[in-house]
Amino acid sequence: MTESNSNPELRRKSKSIIRFENGAFTEKADFLAVEEPLEIRIVYGSPGNQRNRSLSITMRTPGHDRELAAGFLLGEGIVTSADQITQFELTGPKDECTGLTNQLCVHVAEGVSFDFGSLQRNFYTTSSCGICGKASLDAVRAQLTHSVGFPSMKVSASLIASLPSTMRERQSTFDETGGLHAAGLFATDGKLVACYEDVGRHNALDKLVGFQCLAGRLRESESLALVSGRASFELVQKVISAGIPILVAVGAPSSLAAELADEFGVTLVGFASKNRFNIYSHSSRLIMDV
Amino acid sequence: MTESNSNPELRRKSKSIIRFENGAFTEKADFLAVEEPLEIRIVYGSPGNQRNRSLSITMRTPGHDRELAAGFLLGEGIVTSADQITQFELTGPKDECTGLTNQLCVHVAEGVSFDFGSLQRNFYTTSSCGICGKASLDAVRAQLTHSVGFPSMKVSASLIASLPSTMRERQSTFDETGGLHAAGLFATDGKLVACYEDVGRHNALDKLVGFQCLAGRLRESESLALVSGRASFELVQKVISAGIPILVAVGAPSSLAAELADEFGVTLVGFASKNRFNIYSHSSRLIMDV
Repeated sequence: MTESNSNPELRRKSKSIIRFENGAFTEKADFLAVEEPLEIRIVYGSPGNQRNRSLSITMRTPGHDRELAAGFLLGEGIVTSADQITQFELTGPKDECTGLTNQLCVHVAEGVSFDFGSLQRNFYTTSSCGICGKASLDAVRAQLTHSVGFPSMKVSASLIASLPSTMRERQSTFDETGGLHAAGLFATDGKLVACYEDVGRHNALDKLVGFQCLAGRLRESESLALVSGRASFELVQKVISAGIPILVAVGAPSSLAAELADEFGVTLVGFASKNRFNIYSHSSRLIMDV
Repeated sequence: MTESNSNPELRRKSKSIIRFENGAFTEKADFLAVEEPLEIRIVYGSPGNQRNRSLSITMRTPGHDRELAAGFLLGEGIVTSADQITQFELTGPKDECTGLTNQLCVHVAEGVSFDFGSLQRNFYTTSSCGICGKASLDAVRAQLTHSVGFPSMKVSASLIASLPSTMRERQSTFDETGGLHAAGLFATDGKLVACYEDVGRHNALDKLVGFQCLAGRLRESESLALVSGRASFELVQKVISAGIPILVAVGAPSSLAAELADEFGVTLVGFASKNRFNIYSHSSRLIMDV
């Protein structure tokens, strides 16, 4: 497999800025979070009848592009496990400035098939009631046939409250730029297993879920995911596809995120901070400290 | 024109939650920000040869769908002014639960043409160097042929610092849910002209830019836009398409956002708060208080 670009220098860019503070302007050097486009392509079919198509162009922070692509394919329901991905291939010319190649082809195993044209549209549409939240839930039901599992998993309230500060310590590029979302994977003892940063919150979670997928660890153990922003419908869908039973968000969840979490057995926590949080679904996994 | 759904009750949904605070769990009633899909379609061509195609399905907070669609078309470079939009039409069945119709067709004037297939792809790609930030800038250059204008516009530093709290007072659904991004349009005296909320920060700015478009006020006067989150490449692109000279973000800008703002004459401000902010481009529009 081709290496991902995981050099931290690719995630930030220095810039001279002007700061207004205490009533005065001052020139200073600062770092900005890097945002660059990545095209994810899929190579599928059988030998002799191989097809290569563009799936998505996303604005992302470079680094861990393989994980991002794997997580994206998993979230879209195109693959369900790592063994369906046979190869990652960087293609296209190199960007003269950054040295990056921003086009990543994911080769999938023979037999992995999908209806390209209807990928997005079918996701939100049913013939009965058109486009609506209910149709979006129906589509997830069709794609993901079982809930996240681990109904008897238990973690303490104080462990939940400790997660944001644990992840914050690992957000190295955020410290320098203030401009990156993060997604972290935690074990039930509160240990941070993996953490990914990105200008896009969807991308950060895709990288995390892709990491789990490529490590062959999907749906296999009790774990928690933490996201630095709000919890939307799509973020909940991603943790369901990875089989992560508890999603903790530093920000607010949306109505449809809570409905989806409720239906698929996800414990959804929002507004997580050191001293408090809210539980929106499947609260039985969270217990008082003993 | 069909009315937008601007009823505030459509933007929030009540839910019973469990709060952990001061070491104890308590059940309470709460509000969540509503997230529902909207399909934006375009109807174009000449009488007798009319086509109707899906442009985008976005997860949005209901309300001001016309403004959202107009801003989206403007940002994509499909239209450049309100007179190119001839009609909005709600189509498709009504959602039984919410009573909403989540499919909006935008009819455009004869002569408005676009290459559907290459809409997204061309935006980030050039033949010379493939997909990269430079190619993204090139694509905006091809689409937007002039900078935002108003180079001699001047506003005081204290006015910039006052914007977040002014907008905050108008974020009614945010107060109840904590779950909505907002975008506000300000006059040079600091007066809030318009404010839109949405679960998606792109949508909130699309609604604002769409409001300007439909009011026939694009590129016509000195104004400022404020966004509640971070400033990405796409958000800067949207303010350029609307001709708004100053973009203020409560969060951080990305590297590519700052480069785009610099090239197109936008004053980009980040980390705006009551007492301080950073200026990333075209600082000459900001002056000390007299």
